[in-house]
Amino acid sequence: MRAAAARLSGVVRATPVLTSRTLDERVGGSVFLKAECFQRTGSFKLRGAFHAVASLRPEIRAGGVIAFSSGNHAQGLARAAQLHGVGATIVMPTDAPAVKRAAAEGYGAVIVDYDRYTEDREEVGRRVLAERGGTLIPPFDHADVIAGQGTVALELIEEVGPLDVLVVCVGGGGLISGCATAAKATGDVTVIGVEPSTGDDARRSLEEGRIVTIDTPETIADGQQTTSIGALTFAVMRERVDEIVVVTDEEIRTTMRFLFERLNVVVEPSGASALAAVMAGRVDVAGRRIGVTLSGGNVGLDQFFEILGGAP
Amino acid sequence: MRAAAARLSGVVRATPVLTSRTLDERVGGSVFLKAECFQRTGSFKLRGAFHAVASLRPEIRAGGVIAFSSGNHAQGLARAAQLHGVGATIVMPTDAPAVKRAAAEGYGAVIVDYDRYTEDREEVGRRVLAERGGTLIPPFDHADVIAGQGTVALELIEEVGPLDVLVVCVGGGGLISGCATAAKATGDVTVIGVEPSTGDDARRSLEEGRIVTIDTPETIADGQQTTSIGALTFAVMRERVDEIVVVTDEEIRTTMRFLFERLNVVVEPSGASALAAVMAGRVDVAGRRIGVTLSGGNVGLDQFFEILGGAP
Repeated sequence: MRAAAARLSGVVRATPVLTSRTLDERVGGSVFLKAECFQRTGSFKLRGAFHAVASLRPEIRAGGVIAFSSGNHAQGLARAAQLHGVGATIVMPTDAPAVKRAAAEGYGAVIVDYDRYTEDREEVGRRVLAERGGTLIPPFDHADVIAGQGTVALELIEEVGPLDVLVVCVGGGGLISGCATAAKATGDVTVIGVEPSTGDDARRSLEEGRIVTIDTPETIADGQQTTSIGALTFAVMRERVDEIVVVTDEEIRTTMRFLFERLNVVVEPSGASALAAVMAGRVDVAGRRIGVTLSGGNVGLDQFFEILGGAP
Repeated sequence: MRAAAARLSGVVRATPVLTSRTLDERVGGSVFLKAECFQRTGSFKLRGAFHAVASLRPEIRAGGVIAFSSGNHAQGLARAAQLHGVGATIVMPTDAPAVKRAAAEGYGAVIVDYDRYTEDREEVGRRVLAERGGTLIPPFDHADVIAGQGTVALELIEEVGPLDVLVVCVGGGGLISGCATAAKATGDVTVIGVEPSTGDDARRSLEEGRIVTIDTPETIADGQQTTSIGALTFAVMRERVDEIVVVTDEEIRTTMRFLFERLNVVVEPSGASALAAVMAGRVDVAGRRIGVTLSGGNVGLDQFFEILGGAP
């Protein structure tokens, strides 16, 4: 993890840690918000993507990289490839948020569209690999990606000191796997994952002791619409994550509004879910020091308006 | 100024400096955004208010403090008084933004309302002073306020190193007076002030060599609706500010949207005006290192929606 941190130094931003007296009074503990919404490319995903690309052998890397992603991993990988001077191909569903698509293109990636309702993603993937070549960099189930993403917790704890609790959003489980590994190496800290209530596959997976696969959940948290965690993230989470809790879309909205109005920070829905769990009382934080990830901020203004119910 | 910085240490937050590759490419220079929107109370005003309250003799301070303010100075002074354990009375027009009123009350201030269209502000002030006593802390035309506000530039330059240009929003001129003093002490830096185009009293004052008073300007930048700069700020600005430029409300809106979408930062209109001048090409920044204040972020979500034209 420290090797990953060294590799990322100068590339990723050491994002600020935000605190709020109002927030602390409301939840009854000391909350440290790791604001990855201020990360380059707008989310923590750059950390994992850059580390994975940097870890490829040069002759392999030269062949370019590929991702299936409608979201922040697409931007992170596109930028990571650009920084290494190699090509990136992003396979993206046609209904991906415009702001995320435009950003990946802005980093020089080639976008390959597919219709997620009529086309088979695997088949599209095979075709792209055959036509364009390159190395597939998965968004979470990959040791180098996890190690890069774990630097979020490493940085947070190095800046603010030991934590009692670390609360992290869960999609495929890459961020929490890396963060739990980093945090537990520093001492006795309870690691809590947060999923949308409609998509609690990680919670059920840990409860049932096997990887549970669900249908694409309906939630505003588009970064957490994964249908299952990975084999590797499952193994790490089983060992190092203490509990998974869930939040509703309405709790996420309330938290987005709070972050906007009281902290002047724009987060996307998935980026607010970890704090939503704390604010909704899902995590025992009384009198404790709590680290919380604000994992990303890639949401357009119009989309933000729409999510929060629009304006008069 | 360094004495002010020492006094503020541990009270005000050393706010983060934000940078953006996209922004730098767009304007052709290196921009360092001093994000005072993340300051406690939501703006730089806490710095001046706290320093002024701290500088009062204890027996005077114990009598409480008073401000006329519809905005961020109200919050800053209310919090500064609360931190010193003394009372604050804020005289506020009835049409002040709800979010700013609620915040001042949240810091324990007593709010005295007046109708700015039917009541005489001076008379209301005399009545409040007679009834409640206390020391009036003006929002800008006061040496201790200016010194406290100048720590914004001091911190910025200490963090990022020498600047070629410093761009600062101008209301009554307190922030720019303090910042120009701090910046010019560090070396050769061009200091540019920014006003809304409808309220260019500072620009005209510097041009005409006398304090020009205007009617309350119509602008979305409610923190810059001052009708004249002060005697002290005029004297400092004459000596240390190189130029004042203006921006339109539409340029401010565009900048607020850019900050929201690309930097995930919420700023109020006045907080965006300095950057608006840079993005609109009013400041010669090509190849230079430019410090820019994002002076505050006190804007409610509904107000933000309304300012930016609402959602579909």
